[in-house]
Amino acid sequence: EINMKRLQRRFYEMASIGSTENEGVHRLALSDQDKIARDTFIDWSKQAGFLVRIDDFGNIYVRKEGTASKKPIVIGSHLDTVPKGGKYDGSLGVLAGFEILESLLEIEPLETPVEVVVFTNEEGARFPNPMLGSGAISGVFSKQHVYDMVDDDGITFESELERIGYKGDKANRLKEFEAFFELHIEQGPVLEQQGLPIGLVKGIQGLSWHTVQFTGESDHAGTTPISYRRDPMQSAAKAIMRIGEWVENLGDETLVTFGKISSLPNTINVIPSEVTFSMDIRHPNKKVLLRRIETAKTLIREVALEDDTQSLCEDLSLMLPVLFDESLIDLLQSSCQQHGIGYHEMFSGAGHDAMYMNNLGPTVMLFSPSVNGKSHCEEEETSWEDIEKSVKVLGESVVRLASS
Amino acid sequence: EINMKRLQRRFYEMASIGSTENEGVHRLALSDQDKIARDTFIDWSKQAGFLVRIDDFGNIYVRKEGTASKKPIVIGSHLDTVPKGGKYDGSLGVLAGFEILESLLEIEPLETPVEVVVFTNEEGARFPNPMLGSGAISGVFSKQHVYDMVDDDGITFESELERIGYKGDKANRLKEFEAFFELHIEQGPVLEQQGLPIGLVKGIQGLSWHTVQFTGESDHAGTTPISYRRDPMQSAAKAIMRIGEWVENLGDETLVTFGKISSLPNTINVIPSEVTFSMDIRHPNKKVLLRRIETAKTLIREVALEDDTQSLCEDLSLMLPVLFDESLIDLLQSSCQQHGIGYHEMFSGAGHDAMYMNNLGPTVMLFSPSVNGKSHCEEEETSWEDIEKSVKVLGESVVRLASS
Ligand SMILES: NC(=O)NCCC(=O)O
Ligand SMILES: NC(=O)NCCC(=O)O
Repeated sequence: EINMKRLQRRFYEMASIGSTENEGVHRLALSDQDKIARDTFIDWSKQAGFLVRIDDFGNIYVRKEGTASKKPIVIGSHLDTVPKGGKYDGSLGVLAGFEILESLLEIEPLETPVEVVVFTNEEGARFPNPMLGSGAISGVFSKQHVYDMVDDDGITFESELERIGYKGDKANRLKEFEAFFELHIEQGPVLEQQGLPIGLVKGIQGLSWHTVQFTGESDHAGTTPISYRRDPMQSAAKAIMRIGEWVENLGDETLVTFGKISSLPNTINVIPSEVTFSMDIRHPNKKVLLRRIETAKTLIREVALEDDTQSLCEDLSLMLPVLFDESLIDLLQSSCQQHGIGYHEMFSGAGHDAMYMNNLGPTVMLFSPSVNGKSHCEEEETSWEDIEKSVKVLGESVVRLASS
Repeated sequence: EINMKRLQRRFYEMASIGSTENEGVHRLALSDQDKIARDTFIDWSKQAGFLVRIDDFGNIYVRKEGTASKKPIVIGSHLDTVPKGGKYDGSLGVLAGFEILESLLEIEPLETPVEVVVFTNEEGARFPNPMLGSGAISGVFSKQHVYDMVDDDGITFESELERIGYKGDKANRLKEFEAFFELHIEQGPVLEQQGLPIGLVKGIQGLSWHTVQFTGESDHAGTTPISYRRDPMQSAAKAIMRIGEWVENLGDETLVTFGKISSLPNTINVIPSEVTFSMDIRHPNKKVLLRRIETAKTLIREVALEDDTQSLCEDLSLMLPVLFDESLIDLLQSSCQQHGIGYHEMFSGAGHDAMYMNNLGPTVMLFSPSVNGKSHCEEEETSWEDIEKSVKVLGESVVRLASS
């Protein structure tokens, strides 16, 4: 029923759009490469005879009608990547969904309509809120907030959406569904360690993003005695190290990551006037997450006080933990059992569009194993043997639900 | 004899070229702004009837002939600035020299020729070696090294020199001189604290520039347990902090500064694959300086070993400490005394073109006080009352030497 050859052909064609020299993909949201990926996907959809619609955030919906007037079953993910990211993150979920949609053409027409959705700016790598398209249609972000959002070059979301020709109609937004499924790579090491081909995702841990800035006094590197300095680079180093050590000593599920850093004026012989870095904090429990954020902020303020520098911790995004729909988890589980495919129940460490779709209706995810647990990098890899199992289980679940 | 109004008029016209909104100057070496500054200076020189020549590194020489065929007395400094720098750094020395040259037109012709020189890329803010023009003509850098040097955008020194029309003739280089004088702002707090208007500079401390890079493993911020990480950001923070604390605890004249920093892929939810920062180390004593560099490198290697990351410490420039010509220091001192002007004998914390001119012949510097000791920033300030004293003493010394 599932045509793995066709899926692979499409997958590698998609991976060639924005491909990097080390076999990764660099395809930032609403970039020229993203436009080509979208255009290609829509071409395929129209060739297969599906209805295509685009909403006012650039989310793309490809629909196969049902025989009854029912809420659709939706499968979705994203086509944008982080800078120098991998081929599987997002793209796998979209193209697996599309393969299932095409394979449904070959069986008895179903009562329930089925849609595949491509969400805009899932990564948050270009425009600062991740899962922006799914958050926008599920009431997390206002339209104005999304449209006014700027990238590092000060270019707005709205102007880029218009530029690449993907500013569609508000009426096209997904409003309700029977079920939302997202197949995604795990992006972590758990399934590989367990030696199991499928992760049934019970929920997603909470995450919170911040910009931290230390301000001091810019001065000449050669003429300013150490004791006269108010050096924000020393404060930044201290804060990054202390927060890192605090989290390591906690030894629990708390994660903290400092991915971006820059200094001003960024000159070899000038003590910086300011140093800015990003902070990503995660925990599966809402209360604990909020407490961890407060402790990190306190540690930052303490460093500034000690060093006589100034600190600022700006909140960028807070995504609270979610629990997925239990009956959909049961459905996936029984599809696995029917095919004799092993699975592992787990939480997701990464945010996904399913996190916000969960606000709109019954939602669930399934994971395919990541080789060496690596993701958000060019080495990202998942075996086609494992992918085949996930696509089978997902397709089976969709057909069962659509016929029930 | 010295016309302060004329000097000020020229000074503020020069400061307007590349001026920033906070009254600083942003005029990187061989940029469009640098070209305008050079063209303006050459216009003034030609209007005053001086001979102008340009060498193969873009150094500009303005010459007033003497009545005898003697080696020239040379006054010089630079017109480039650091990003968002001040108006006085470099520019003061060039324009004070030019004012002295013009004022010499109004007295009896001197036996000795006098030249004013503008050196290229003194700051090292664009092309990584500071004092590049003076180093090139004094045998520190080979012509190929200078020409092939690239800025952060990969643009070569040679192509920029050609683009702005300042690739002159090797025959025009300064080869020998009777004396080299550089008037510069102190760029530090000492003279202000001493309440003295002139610094007689006995020498320059040594300085050494490096690029430090930690490499680890890029991974997803949400799915990679802390204990699995090889995070170069943590290593960079640790190294910056440990070296900072070590130098603070030394409590001697050692200075260390981390001015630049960046990470790859520089994404909020990605553990970086590499973090790179600059290191500037200084000490007035050659042996101690070399020992300090070794210790800093050891600390960096230790951090990498502890964290299971990789470290690299690339040497960019080593400028050994210099001592200036004693008879020229005596000459400046006796000019101060003759005018009843107070002075302070001191070392320079910053490198200057005089550092390399010292290789070619008798060299000395004098400093004017920096308000609040601030430099390499837009707030850079020096009082005209203090400047007048320095220009008088320098002019007096040149005339005395030229007539002796
Ligand atoms: N899957 C994924 O990387 N989503 C982006 C949000 C996150 O960093 O968890
Ligand atoms: N004067 C000056 O800032 N020169 C550049 C070299 C240094 O950083 O000391």
